[in-house]
Amino acid sequence: MAVVDQAPVSDVMHNPIKHSEFEIISRFLAAPNLSFSREGIELGIGDDAALIEVPPNKHLAMSMDVLIAGIHFPAEADPALIANRALAVNLSDLAAMAAEPYCFTLGLVLPQGDEKWLADFSGGLGQLAKQYNCPLVGGDTSRGPLSISIQVQGLVDRDEAARRSGAQVGDRIYVSGTLGDAAIALLTLGFDSHLGGEFSLTLGEPSAACLQFFEDAYFKPQPQIDLSSAAGKLFSSCIDISDGLQGDLQHILDESEVRGNIRLDAIPYSESANCCVSPENRLLAALFGGDDYELCFTVAEKDCAELESIAKQQGVRVTCIGDISAGEGIDYLGVDGSSVELKPQAFQHFGARA
Amino acid sequence: MAVVDQAPVSDVMHNPIKHSEFEIISRFLAAPNLSFSREGIELGIGDDAALIEVPPNKHLAMSMDVLIAGIHFPAEADPALIANRALAVNLSDLAAMAAEPYCFTLGLVLPQGDEKWLADFSGGLGQLAKQYNCPLVGGDTSRGPLSISIQVQGLVDRDEAARRSGAQVGDRIYVSGTLGDAAIALLTLGFDSHLGGEFSLTLGEPSAACLQFFEDAYFKPQPQIDLSSAAGKLFSSCIDISDGLQGDLQHILDESEVRGNIRLDAIPYSESANCCVSPENRLLAALFGGDDYELCFTVAEKDCAELESIAKQQGVRVTCIGDISAGEGIDYLGVDGSSVELKPQAFQHFGARA
Repeated sequence: MAVVDQAPVSDVMHNPIKHSEFEIISRFLAAPNLSFSREGIELGIGDDAALIEVPPNKHLAMSMDVLIAGIHFPAEADPALIANRALAVNLSDLAAMAAEPYCFTLGLVLPQGDEKWLADFSGGLGQLAKQYNCPLVGGDTSRGPLSISIQVQGLVDRDEAARRSGAQVGDRIYVSGTLGDAAIALLTLGFDSHLGGEFSLTLGEPSAACLQFFEDAYFKPQPQIDLSSAAGKLFSSCIDISDGLQGDLQHILDESEVRGNIRLDAIPYSESANCCVSPENRLLAALFGGDDYELCFTVAEKDCAELESIAKQQGVRVTCIGDISAGEGIDYLGVDGSSVELKPQAFQHFGARA
Repeated sequence: MAVVDQAPVSDVMHNPIKHSEFEIISRFLAAPNLSFSREGIELGIGDDAALIEVPPNKHLAMSMDVLIAGIHFPAEADPALIANRALAVNLSDLAAMAAEPYCFTLGLVLPQGDEKWLADFSGGLGQLAKQYNCPLVGGDTSRGPLSISIQVQGLVDRDEAARRSGAQVGDRIYVSGTLGDAAIALLTLGFDSHLGGEFSLTLGEPSAACLQFFEDAYFKPQPQIDLSSAAGKLFSSCIDISDGLQGDLQHILDESEVRGNIRLDAIPYSESANCCVSPENRLLAALFGGDDYELCFTVAEKDCAELESIAKQQGVRVTCIGDISAGEGIDYLGVDGSSVELKPQAFQHFGARA
């Protein structure tokens, strides 16, 4: 059997970077800042599977998000920012369950093995992983169209997870942070928005500070892990706002079989949103923009003071935007408390615009 | 605020099938044959995260594989076969850890929401999921270039997982099933092989039975879960053969810091491989072809009789192909027991051909 020194003729039907995969993994992904050890991680990267333990008083929470270049992030963006965003949106799902980050796995598909890109990506990923003590424990790499699949694992006390189905009549509806900023960021970053042509920076040219604020809002969403860890036991239900307040709140209402009454003037906006965007477009961004990765949650009336006190201690803005009543759907209320006709049925069709 | 009845103008920067995602999930993925209940699954599809429990005497094993159309499977293949393959290769990783399948998550990226495709895909996935009592518990869907990310979770007794690092001097090296069939299948299926132009069906036109055998070998790899469940405690080390025997055995040898001695005439081939492919090409397929998803494992000499007895009970072919000695690397032995020069260093370069 002679060795023929000839390059491969085909890229198809067997992973063409399979051989260099191990080198990539060991250099950029099995790096100490990313696949660090933590209690309970029995075996990380480097075998057929990772091995972890789950304390008997805990449930393991698992969530997967797939981010595709050109859809969930611009392919040419800073790899550290892409990495940050990819992990942050997954951590946000854990926050929405009131689960503590534990570890994550990564499916990384790359058009080519660009070392600079990988170094920056790994660095961005490691920074957030360290911040939340959530190491990379395994995954897969392949050549192909740029995409990032992350599955994050979290721990939550048994029967203490904040599900979508727990909202009760009389509960108050809260959101963390401010809404609509990530949707407005698409405009300042020069990307198209699915909200259509009337959605625009109606109040003139944004300041440099506003531009930076929106870029951070899009690429560096802050998963509300700290709030959720501290106050999650007070949440009767919770969801993270990835598709806009209307759609995500609706999931809570559907699962809990209740109605939500939202005071439009209570929806919290950032100063930058107030500076750059008309009231109509702010509302559009908050209700339908998506990508905010803030939490929408319900709290029993008796627990609201404690919730607000904890949030203040955590330095996290929380805003009561309405309450839960019997029925179904969402009632939007104006300043005078009367219903405002937003034709929610029409909004529910993807692409409908207000 | 008026509702403008206008279609969205852009597909970019926000998941364009996000709205219909929920319908797709509920119809094809949250289907009873796929996201069925099983003990320990506290919460499946439909919240921000799935919730599972892990018994205190068990470790959770987790493995993720990403399959890209055109690289890991042909885009135009039967969706049921694609689904089968995608889940099977993940289950094979659990078998390699001697872990019992528990549940899985799916990141499905589709160019369009093709209902027929989804129905067939879901059906294929459900069939294997049911077979191994391994329900779908969550995931993500997006529009984009066709790809399938699966993370599979398994349970294994604490300290009983079959790691790559446990091979000891004197252990016997075994493989399950037959090797090289999936690589040969690329030829019968009309796909390119990375093994190069000299890798061909050298022994004439395959019979219909052989064609079917190879198609099944490629699309329906049989994860060796049953063997691994029954005999895994006898494995001192184990890996699944996804990249070819040489590369995968090398991982065991590296992690265990030992040397492997392989008797070339002991490598098991299928009757179909013997019918259709020359001895040189069979060896090439076995050592470098990949995609076999059989197990390569080591067993202490004292345990070999028990291993072979269990395999016989399970109806699984296992073959002793060599043993472990002190040192490093692989020694290939001919019929007379003397070393055969395969220039393994040259083989280690991706694309080198024999």
